[in-house]
Amino acid sequence: IVVLTGGVGGAKLVLGLTQIVAPEKICAIVNTGDDFRHLGLHISPDLDTLLYTLAGKANPVAGWGREGESWNFMAAVRSLGGPDWFSLGDGDLALHVLRSARLAAGEGLAAITAAFARSWNVNVTMLPMSEDPVPTLLDTEEGLLAFQDYFVARRCAPAVRRVIFDGADRALPGPGVIEAIEDRQTEAILIAPSNPYLSIDPILSVPGIGTALRRATAPVVAISPIVGGAAVKGPTAKLMQELGFPVSPAVVAAHYSELIDGLLVDQRDDASGLTLAHAQTDTLMSTLADRARVAEAALMLAQRLVP
Amino acid sequence: IVVLTGGVGGAKLVLGLTQIVAPEKICAIVNTGDDFRHLGLHISPDLDTLLYTLAGKANPVAGWGREGESWNFMAAVRSLGGPDWFSLGDGDLALHVLRSARLAAGEGLAAITAAFARSWNVNVTMLPMSEDPVPTLLDTEEGLLAFQDYFVARRCAPAVRRVIFDGADRALPGPGVIEAIEDRQTEAILIAPSNPYLSIDPILSVPGIGTALRRATAPVVAISPIVGGAAVKGPTAKLMQELGFPVSPAVVAAHYSELIDGLLVDQRDDASGLTLAHAQTDTLMSTLADRARVAEAALMLAQRLVP
Repeated sequence: IVVLTGGVGGAKLVLGLTQIVAPEKICAIVNTGDDFRHLGLHISPDLDTLLYTLAGKANPVAGWGREGESWNFMAAVRSLGGPDWFSLGDGDLALHVLRSARLAAGEGLAAITAAFARSWNVNVTMLPMSEDPVPTLLDTEEGLLAFQDYFVARRCAPAVRRVIFDGADRALPGPGVIEAIEDRQTEAILIAPSNPYLSIDPILSVPGIGTALRRATAPVVAISPIVGGAAVKGPTAKLMQELGFPVSPAVVAAHYSELIDGLLVDQRDDASGLTLAHAQTDTLMSTLADRARVAEAALMLAQRLVP
Repeated sequence: IVVLTGGVGGAKLVLGLTQIVAPEKICAIVNTGDDFRHLGLHISPDLDTLLYTLAGKANPVAGWGREGESWNFMAAVRSLGGPDWFSLGDGDLALHVLRSARLAAGEGLAAITAAFARSWNVNVTMLPMSEDPVPTLLDTEEGLLAFQDYFVARRCAPAVRRVIFDGADRALPGPGVIEAIEDRQTEAILIAPSNPYLSIDPILSVPGIGTALRRATAPVVAISPIVGGAAVKGPTAKLMQELGFPVSPAVVAAHYSELIDGLLVDQRDDASGLTLAHAQTDTLMSTLADRARVAEAALMLAQRLVP
């Protein structure tokens, strides 16, 4: 099972999948458009969130970072007049420092991610969408903003006119990405209920990934990030409106139209107008059982669509 | 007052000085021979120890690092299979991360150190001996060792044949160093009771600093690191023996012979054979009062030596 995913919502889905499919059979292709350098460190928010979630170390309340985290680094940074708009937990820093050191030594992001996963007994394969920088930029009413400036520093407040995947035209898919999608053994390809514009589109912006999805023999099923006409968390709904769309699963279906074979829609939303194959369930993933149920519903829809 | 200093012992002397002289009138020229890169971070152990000591943040038991430090970063590094032979506290990391980021952005070590000191209301001027790398290497019975490999990883166990200040021939004195030594307003130049071979010699290895000391109008007074025929802490006595010397203030006097005008000797040691101007006191610096007393004794000896 291949999953295209961003951070929080997608990580819940992948965790749900591990409840019904052996982790070794799951391959997550992860957004790295949010990656950035901060204080000289290479930070990969979505890879980290997925890793923490699958390793059982995630902070379930914040939706990012580690459970039981301490903040003495940040306190010292603040006392030294350093930038404190992006919170780096003491334990969390280990990933960033080790990743940065290994990147500087010439290792690739995919190999580093795999080594981290092994250390924490995470058996899901985690593939960065690309090892090349493809920073997401937001063209907003306040001008061009880097992703974290928009997402963290400005808390998604500025209205977005356009999302830019800077450098995507020169980026190569990460090691294993195309192979995983096109593998004839792959039974289903899921698009997680992550933000289509900020978490999934960056993955699709990497040349070759869209073509691979179209060539894949496995059915492609997206899980709608809309729940009862709103987004569960994050700026999905706000962005949809700013980009001129109603907040509905039909917009999600249209957004992924050429790439997906089916859409899993929340039971609260109206799916009557969808011409695409679809199924409905409660897609709110509060508990682990919820996550497994959503993952199972997506896989069942995919099974229906096997040619 | 100018002080040439290494880490722990020197920091105690400088702190003692601040009890009897306004901090603004004190300039510490600090060993950077122990500086190294670890996990991609630039670490300056002696600058940090001095900064923590003067800012009242030092761990008085360990002799390095911060008081009340937490260790969640190290635990996470260990869980990820990262190197754990050099302990980096969570709060301590802030200095290393911010320093590394500012160095990478093109700032100099002296300016960065001054900014850190300002942030923590440390009014002693702290000057790195050089902004160029002059890594101390130990030629030991086990081969050539980098300073931290010898000092931390091997706990000073291998016998040392020679100490090498790699790159010293190409190094420039740090900004302000020569000016501070030669300044006609400078009333005394002290050499802290730091390890002569590992903490003070690196400073003296930087071309121009020895000449400046000889040209200085202020008297130069060293405080012997020997207390009752032994070193208080660290490998000073062990090194002396390995290099073929008895552990005595006479050896310290001979070591600095051409540079110093006087030597402050511990009252437990025999100073009878010294041809150099000297004074004796209890040089053990356990309490803040001890440190102030030793600083005062050194300054009084210097005053006696004003031409």
